[in-house]
Amino acid sequence: MDKLSLDAAFDSIEEYWTPHLASEVNGQAVKLAKTEGAFVWHSHDGADELFLVHSGTLRIEFRERDDVTLQEGESLVVPRGTEHRPVAEPEAEILLFEPAATVNTGDADDDRQQAEPKRLD
Amino acid sequence: MDKLSLDAAFDSIEEYWTPHLASEVNGQAVKLAKTEGAFVWHSHDGADELFLVHSGTLRIEFRERDDVTLQEGESLVVPRGTEHRPVAEPEAEILLFEPAATVNTGDADDDRQQAEPKRLD
Repeated sequence: MDKLSLDAAFDSIEEYWTPHLASEVNGQAVKLAKTEGAFVWHSHDGADELFLVHSGTLRIEFRERDDVTLQEGESLVVPRGTEHRPVAEPEAEILLFEPAATVNTGDADDDRQQAEPKRLD
Repeated sequence: MDKLSLDAAFDSIEEYWTPHLASEVNGQAVKLAKTEGAFVWHSHDGADELFLVHSGTLRIEFRERDDVTLQEGESLVVPRGTEHRPVAEPEAEILLFEPAATVNTGDADDDRQQAEPKRLD
C-alpha cells in the first residue's frame, strides 16, 4: 500500500502512447500515458474509458459529434463502443481509468498497440 | 458526454465530507469531496477505495501500519476491509474512485453518513 506521485510517475515514462499501470481498484485500473500528436481512430467494445489530463492539452475527436478539448484538470468519459481519436496538442500527460485488460488501440490495427499496460518503474 | 472541470466542480461543492458523483465508468464512480479535519474510523468491506488529492493535504491513518500523507497529485489505494481514517490538514479537495454505491462512512456510525453521493450542480 504505497502512495503514488503522479508527477514522479510521469517523469519515469519515456515512450509516447504507452499506458503504464499505476493502480488497481475494484478490477479497474488507473493507467498513465504520455501522448504526442494524433493517435489512431478506435473504439473499445466492452469498456468505458475515462480521460483526465494531468498536463498539456488533449483533443478527443468523434465521428458523429463535436470534438472535446481537455486542458489540465479536465476529464471526459468516452462510453464503450464510441469511436474516438485522441490528439495531443502538442503533448499531454493523461490519466486513464478503465479495465486493466483494455488495449490502447481498441479495435484498430496500429503499430502502437500494446496488449498489456507496462508497469511503472 | 460533457467534459468535467475539476476546479469548477470543487468550486461548486459547499459541504465537507460529502461525496459528489462526478463520473461513472464501468460501474465505478469518480466522486469529489471537500474535506476538513478528521473523519471517522471506518472500513468498506466490499470495495477498494482510491484517494487522489486535488489540493491540500490528506493524511490517511491506519490501525496496523504507518499513516500515509498525500499532497496534491498523490494517490493511494486503500484495499477493501482496511480500517482507515482520513484527516485533512487543515483542508483538502479529494477525488475518489470506488463503486457508486460505497457509503462514505463504511461500517461506522457517524452523522456525516451519506447513503448516496450527491449530484454535482
